[in-house]
Amino acid sequence: MLTEAQSNRLRVVLVSTRNPLNIGAAARAMSNFGFRHLRVVNPYAPAFQEARSAVGASSVLAHAERFTTVAEAVADATLIVGTTAVRHRHLHHTLRRPEDAARLIRTRLRRANVALLFGSEKFGLSNDDLSHCHWLLRIPTDEANISMNLGQAVAVSLYELIRSEDKVEHEPERYASAGEIERITAVLLEALKTSGFLDLRRVADAEQRIRRLVRRLDLPARDAVIWLGIFRQIVWKLRAGEPRSRG
Amino acid sequence: MLTEAQSNRLRVVLVSTRNPLNIGAAARAMSNFGFRHLRVVNPYAPAFQEARSAVGASSVLAHAERFTTVAEAVADATLIVGTTAVRHRHLHHTLRRPEDAARLIRTRLRRANVALLFGSEKFGLSNDDLSHCHWLLRIPTDEANISMNLGQAVAVSLYELIRSEDKVEHEPERYASAGEIERITAVLLEALKTSGFLDLRRVADAEQRIRRLVRRLDLPARDAVIWLGIFRQIVWKLRAGEPRSRG
Repeated sequence: MLTEAQSNRLRVVLVSTRNPLNIGAAARAMSNFGFRHLRVVNPYAPAFQEARSAVGASSVLAHAERFTTVAEAVADATLIVGTTAVRHRHLHHTLRRPEDAARLIRTRLRRANVALLFGSEKFGLSNDDLSHCHWLLRIPTDEANISMNLGQAVAVSLYELIRSEDKVEHEPERYASAGEIERITAVLLEALKTSGFLDLRRVADAEQRIRRLVRRLDLPARDAVIWLGIFRQIVWKLRAGEPRSRG
Repeated sequence: MLTEAQSNRLRVVLVSTRNPLNIGAAARAMSNFGFRHLRVVNPYAPAFQEARSAVGASSVLAHAERFTTVAEAVADATLIVGTTAVRHRHLHHTLRRPEDAARLIRTRLRRANVALLFGSEKFGLSNDDLSHCHWLLRIPTDEANISMNLGQAVAVSLYELIRSEDKVEHEPERYASAGEIERITAVLLEALKTSGFLDLRRVADAEQRIRRLVRRLDLPARDAVIWLGIFRQIVWKLRAGEPRSRG
C-alpha cells in the first residue's frame, strides 16, 4: 500500500478519451485504490460532461481537471509514464513491465508527483503525447488480443501500484518538474536552430526527438537549473555572433 | 505467464450478472489475458443476449456457456474460488490477497480445473453461492470505496494470475563508455568557455563540476552520439561568430 501522501502525488491523465463510461470507469478504479487526481486532456466534450454529471459520480470525477495540452496536464510532475499495449511501435522508449514500472513510480511518489498517461480508446497515445513520457508501462496481454478496455487498463495499472510494499529504495534528490524540463527543451531547440544543427538533420519530427532526448536525461532539479543556464548562455552568445545582431 | 494448458483449465463464472457491458468487459479481459472459458449463471437474460450479439463480440463470448445453478457451472472444477470486496461479512471463509490466491490457483491449474466466481454488480456472491467456494479472493480496495466495477475486478484478478515472476526484462540499451562521456565533457567545456558561461561563474573546480554534471546524465550510447554532435555544432558556430576567427 502507498501512504496517503504518495497516493495524492499521482496524476492519472486521460488523453483524448471518447467514451464517458471509460472516464467514469477510470475514476472508479482510482477511487477503489485511493487515488484522487484525475486529469483529462482534450476529451470529447460531451463525454466529459456526461461522465461528470452521471448519477453517483465520485468526488474523483467531480474534481477532475481539464487541460488542452499534455504539456500543461503533466507540468507539475517529475516523472511522466505513458501506457501502451503495443510492443513493436515504440522504438524510442523503454518499455517496462507493470511490476517494474510500479516500483519506480512508488519510489518517485515518495517525494514528487508522477503522471500516468492513458491514450484514446482507438489510437492510444500519439507520438506527440509519447514525446512527453520518460518511459512506457506495458501490461503483458495476449498476442491474439492485445488491446485492453481503457477502464480495465487503468484498474490493472493502479492495482499494480498499490499491490505490494517494497523496500525503501535510495531516492537521492528532487527531480525536475515537467515544466522545468519543457523550458530546457525550448531553449535547447533555440540553440539547435541558431547553431544550424537542425538544418543539417532535417527530419519531420525534430522537436519530438529533442523532447524525448531531454526527457531521457531524467534530470534532478539542481542539474536542471544548471543546464537551463548553460543553454541560455549559449543561445545568447550564438545570437551575439550573428551578423544581423551587429548590423 | 501460464501455459496454454493452464489457461484452458480456468473457468470464469459470472453469477447473476445484470449489465451486458459487464459480461462483455469480463470476456474482453479474459481474451486479453489468454483465458477462454466463460460461464454465466442465471444472468439477466436480455443482458446475456445483448452481450453475445454485440458488434465485435469475441470468441470468448460466442462460446460462453449458460447454466442455471452455480453447482452445475463449477461441476468440473476441483478448486472453487469466490471473489469479494467485503472484509467483514465472510466469517466462514478464508480471505486471501490476490497474489496468494493467484499462486494457489496457478498451482492447481497445472493438473485440474479451477472456477473463479464473480457475483452480481449490486449484491456480489450470495451466501448460497459462497457455500460452493473453498476460499475467497479479495482485491485490497480503499475503505472509502471498496466496491469495484465487475469488469475491472475480473481484469485485475486475471492479471494477477498471468503476472509472472519469471521476468523477461527489457534490457534497453548499451550505456555510453567513459571515453564517450569524456569526449562530450571536453566539447561541452569548450562550449562553456567560448560562450562565456564559465567566465560568469568563476570557481576553482569548474571542470570537475562539469564532469560530474555530464556523468549524472547516465547517457545511453545512442544519446551520447547525439549530444556530442549537438555540442560540436554549437562550438563550431560559436567560433564562427567570434571576431578573431574572421580576422
